[in-house]
Amino acid sequence: MVKVSIIGSGNVAQHLIAAFAKSNITTLVQVYSRNPDSLLPFVEADKIASSLDALAEADIYIIAVSDLAIAEVSRHIAFTGRLIVHTSGSIAMEALDNKNRRGVFYPLQTFTKNKPVDFKEIPICLEAENDTDYAVLEQVAKTISDHLYRIGSQQRKALHVAAVFVNNFTNHLYRIGNDICTENDIPFDILKPLIAETANKVMTLTPEQAQTGPAKRNDQNTIETHLKFLTDQNQKDIYKILTQSIMNDGKKL
Amino acid sequence: MVKVSIIGSGNVAQHLIAAFAKSNITTLVQVYSRNPDSLLPFVEADKIASSLDALAEADIYIIAVSDLAIAEVSRHIAFTGRLIVHTSGSIAMEALDNKNRRGVFYPLQTFTKNKPVDFKEIPICLEAENDTDYAVLEQVAKTISDHLYRIGSQQRKALHVAAVFVNNFTNHLYRIGNDICTENDIPFDILKPLIAETANKVMTLTPEQAQTGPAKRNDQNTIETHLKFLTDQNQKDIYKILTQSIMNDGKKL
Repeated sequence: MVKVSIIGSGNVAQHLIAAFAKSNITTLVQVYSRNPDSLLPFVEADKIASSLDALAEADIYIIAVSDLAIAEVSRHIAFTGRLIVHTSGSIAMEALDNKNRRGVFYPLQTFTKNKPVDFKEIPICLEAENDTDYAVLEQVAKTISDHLYRIGSQQRKALHVAAVFVNNFTNHLYRIGNDICTENDIPFDILKPLIAETANKVMTLTPEQAQTGPAKRNDQNTIETHLKFLTDQNQKDIYKILTQSIMNDGKKL
Repeated sequence: MVKVSIIGSGNVAQHLIAAFAKSNITTLVQVYSRNPDSLLPFVEADKIASSLDALAEADIYIIAVSDLAIAEVSRHIAFTGRLIVHTSGSIAMEALDNKNRRGVFYPLQTFTKNKPVDFKEIPICLEAENDTDYAVLEQVAKTISDHLYRIGSQQRKALHVAAVFVNNFTNHLYRIGNDICTENDIPFDILKPLIAETANKVMTLTPEQAQTGPAKRNDQNTIETHLKFLTDQNQKDIYKILTQSIMNDGKKL
């Protein structure tokens, strides 16, 4: 059995705890939190550590705290020479204190509190300073996910930016769609099958193949009509820049 | 049985033909196309009309041609006083020649050639000049879809703009994500579960509730890192405007 401890109690930590609970090759040794009470619904009381000094021996420590706290938490850990990983998309492996062996265990997904996810489907991006540690990470990761990727810190940074585009920014476009519906007494529900199919299409087609719409077919009439329709300057600006960007892609072909 | 004829042979026309084939309260009388050969795989030869003058009597004629051709096709139809609808999100009902009774039958979905869709899940937006015709449209629409909406021409215009945001523009963000992956030797597959879950989240949460990321939490460090990482000016500009727009939403609360 591989002994795993988790440092943190937020969204990612909670989803990892749930995922490891189903794994038959790992044992959850401890979970650390500054607010132990927040863990009581998920973790047996005797496995909760409320101080970093109380961390028992484990084969791997997974730091799942906010980006800004990662370096500091890794410095405050008392022991040395053990395998410690963080779960962040945007922080380099080297941000971890080098008194321990370092690595990254980054599950690329948007986690919602109290909404279970199928961890098997979540890609986990792994990185380690040496091959032995990488093998341990791989062994642990494959018990909870079917999709493992070896991704260096620079690639992970790229991936995190790409994730902001396809997740944060996409959700914001949903928000604008929702706002336009609300302003015109249209239920947002009417857009949901379109949202689902838009995502579904790129599971099998490339985004380039899936692109449709007035910008793609250079339909200036419709574009003008839409710009006249939009009264919010911010929505107009976003419409213009994305329309232009789609048109530029067309010219590159 | 309600007698339906379809005018057009493109994506929407083909998906409507397939949907009506399963309906037990409609009969497909004819399909008109300037290129009858394109219809042969889907329609029996004796039901194909290659001239508008060859259109037989039907209870409803559905014009599923490109936006720019709708008005002209409706003018070239020889008969008068019958129910004629178009399927466009961006064209007003009044664009149809008023020698016939007019309406709109707009299925709000992105259709891909040769990719079957579950029409039952597709919202159909209906509009008609009078309640009797509306009832006929409703009767026909509900045999192919479970989601009918009465939507006026002005609302339909709003809906079409909203659809551009949640479909065309969202797909373009997928494209940018794909481009960033390609430039950094990362398989696009790694983003697919995130894309799927991003769409999935707004099926039950509002986009406002689902919003996460550096812009949402005003994380200037990460935003700076991302902007430094992006070298493509167009990607940088899109990153900035969408980040700012998410931040402005935060201030409105």
